[in-house]
Amino acid sequence: MKLIKKAILPKGYQANGVACGLKKSKKADLALIYSEFPAVASAKFTTNSIIAAPLVVCKKHLKSAKRFQAVLANSGNANCFTGKSGIKDASETASFAAKELGIAKHSVLVNSTGIIGKRLDIEKIKQALPGLVCGLSAAGIHLAKKAIMTTDTFAKEISVSLKIGTKTVEICGIAKGAGMIAPNMATMLCFIMTDAAITQSALDKALKAAVDKSFNCISVDGCMSTNDTVLVLANAAAGNKVISGGDDLRKFSLALELICLDLAKMVVADAEGATKFIQIDVTQAKNIPEAKKIALAIANSALFKTAVYGQNPNFGRVAAAVGASGFKIKNEQLKIKLGSLKGKQVKLEVSLFRGKARCTVYTSDLTPGYVKINAAYN
Amino acid sequence: MKLIKKAILPKGYQANGVACGLKKSKKADLALIYSEFPAVASAKFTTNSIIAAPLVVCKKHLKSAKRFQAVLANSGNANCFTGKSGIKDASETASFAAKELGIAKHSVLVNSTGIIGKRLDIEKIKQALPGLVCGLSAAGIHLAKKAIMTTDTFAKEISVSLKIGTKTVEICGIAKGAGMIAPNMATMLCFIMTDAAITQSALDKALKAAVDKSFNCISVDGCMSTNDTVLVLANAAAGNKVISGGDDLRKFSLALELICLDLAKMVVADAEGATKFIQIDVTQAKNIPEAKKIALAIANSALFKTAVYGQNPNFGRVAAAVGASGFKIKNEQLKIKLGSLKGKQVKLEVSLFRGKARCTVYTSDLTPGYVKINAAYN
Repeated sequence: MKLIKKAILPKGYQANGVACGLKKSKKADLALIYSEFPAVASAKFTTNSIIAAPLVVCKKHLKSAKRFQAVLANSGNANCFTGKSGIKDASETASFAAKELGIAKHSVLVNSTGIIGKRLDIEKIKQALPGLVCGLSAAGIHLAKKAIMTTDTFAKEISVSLKIGTKTVEICGIAKGAGMIAPNMATMLCFIMTDAAITQSALDKALKAAVDKSFNCISVDGCMSTNDTVLVLANAAAGNKVISGGDDLRKFSLALELICLDLAKMVVADAEGATKFIQIDVTQAKNIPEAKKIALAIANSALFKTAVYGQNPNFGRVAAAVGASGFKIKNEQLKIKLGSLKGKQVKLEVSLFRGKARCTVYTSDLTPGYVKINAAYN
Repeated sequence: MKLIKKAILPKGYQANGVACGLKKSKKADLALIYSEFPAVASAKFTTNSIIAAPLVVCKKHLKSAKRFQAVLANSGNANCFTGKSGIKDASETASFAAKELGIAKHSVLVNSTGIIGKRLDIEKIKQALPGLVCGLSAAGIHLAKKAIMTTDTFAKEISVSLKIGTKTVEICGIAKGAGMIAPNMATMLCFIMTDAAITQSALDKALKAAVDKSFNCISVDGCMSTNDTVLVLANAAAGNKVISGGDDLRKFSLALELICLDLAKMVVADAEGATKFIQIDVTQAKNIPEAKKIALAIANSALFKTAVYGQNPNFGRVAAAVGASGFKIKNEQLKIKLGSLKGKQVKLEVSLFRGKARCTVYTSDLTPGYVKINAAYN
């Protein structure tokens, strides 16, 4: 397996990104990813019960079609809490893109990220689409990755190649953070393109496992978003024997997990206002859900996060967060090991002496910068 | 019922507060409240499974005795996560106080608030006790209320008098906040003294109802503390007919609720770094637990709290918090009314159109000041 910390589109994919005017800053805000070949798709969405309009449309398309060729994503407006008009708007942007690309509407998946509660100006998207499609290219992924950014300070990208039989399969992922990040995802969009030939059920299985161990193990501020999406397209252009199980699926799953974990960590590293990247290992738990819940309780403790920001090794706040997690942990069942707080990387290990399960969660510190960014978002 | 926003000790109580050296600032850090007559006591403690040593001792005393005469509380050190030595320390401070007051050890209740994970220097408490006891007086409550403060910027105090039959009954409460405030209480100590004659079961019932509607409806940072305590002493000095139920209990309960709610609101108003006092009314919920859980989900949303700080009327963040609360709320089932964010008082009303239940929760905004205070606590 070969890993490159850069987006390199696999065979059969093109992308592009432009500024269509949704962002006041005039920065790029509209991305398109296109597969020349119809691709199998699998997606994981936010579990927030208030979901954004494009997710409603995306879910509908995923149900009604079997193959997909395009992802259209805008930043600057989440098209969420916009009622029936919002759903109509999202649906129309899919229509515009489909028409421009000459493909079926249902094979276009749509996504949005940005401010909640404001109607999306679809006229701007419509105007920009001809140019967006015209400029599609393999290198255009570097424009697309920037067009999905909101408060991100750097683009998140990674590529992996692996052998399936005699063929080389490539996987490429891009993502955006950077606030409202909580388990069960975030204001977080992640698009993964692979040229692997893989069955629907194998792809679903691989994605679920990868997301559970990556995007569902990060938290910036405990706020679950309305737009979170991790989407994989697999267009079979690599010509490998179709992956359906066994060793091939294990290898592919591992590569997908690597992609997701690396992107998830980048999201945390670029968390709004963060000065620290914190790894929390909860060990010797009764089971994994217990380990994960306790790790996330610590990750979401404002007092722990401010202590790390202040380089203040206050393990009492860790104990308080563990005790508040809902499990009957006794003082004697708790060992807390907090590494140095001086550098950018901070490691915390909490041993529970209750069993053998463990879980690792990634988070950031809570800083005046986070407050400032989120107080002045509008 | 007469309410005074000042602590006035009921008949038969005395108090005092001194600086014994636990706080580096040399400010008052040791408080004693004494009842000349053995009093019935009722208490509510944190539900954090990691509880502080004095709470272990307090609970033991409450089980093993029926009447109580003293509350000894220190600030500057929470005596939590200090193992068996911490429990021994807490127990010894009760012994010191009992000896000095000439009463049984089990009739002394102890409490601590401050930093977690550091051994309590009980020698300092022992040295200070003779002077503390010697200086007991009715007016000493104004020294005691200051000696329990940590990051509080003002003392929290209130008194109520009411008629039970022909007798006047008085209730007086003092409390301290100001961070690690979450439902199921907080780093929050509240001591309530009344001269009412009341049965144990009536007092327990009244306190539970009062706390549920007050201290369990506030959240500053979603962090549940290890030391939270609300403690009531009732010494029967008013000479009223013993309250055991009926109208008398209803009247007393109402007064106790008033005391608790007012003190709880003061705790929120004095939240660390806060610039706003936020009232969240969730209405038309299926039932009260649903209304409360959703109100608290909003109250604990870092994004909502920073938006209020920034006077940024971002109702999308309210919708996102409601959707993440675990209930299947539909977009159409949600009406959000956010009042002006300009002043210090902010009112948010969320209607769910699911039923007739409602709940009000109080919280504060999340500010750079909160982060600074908690980054530099040590």
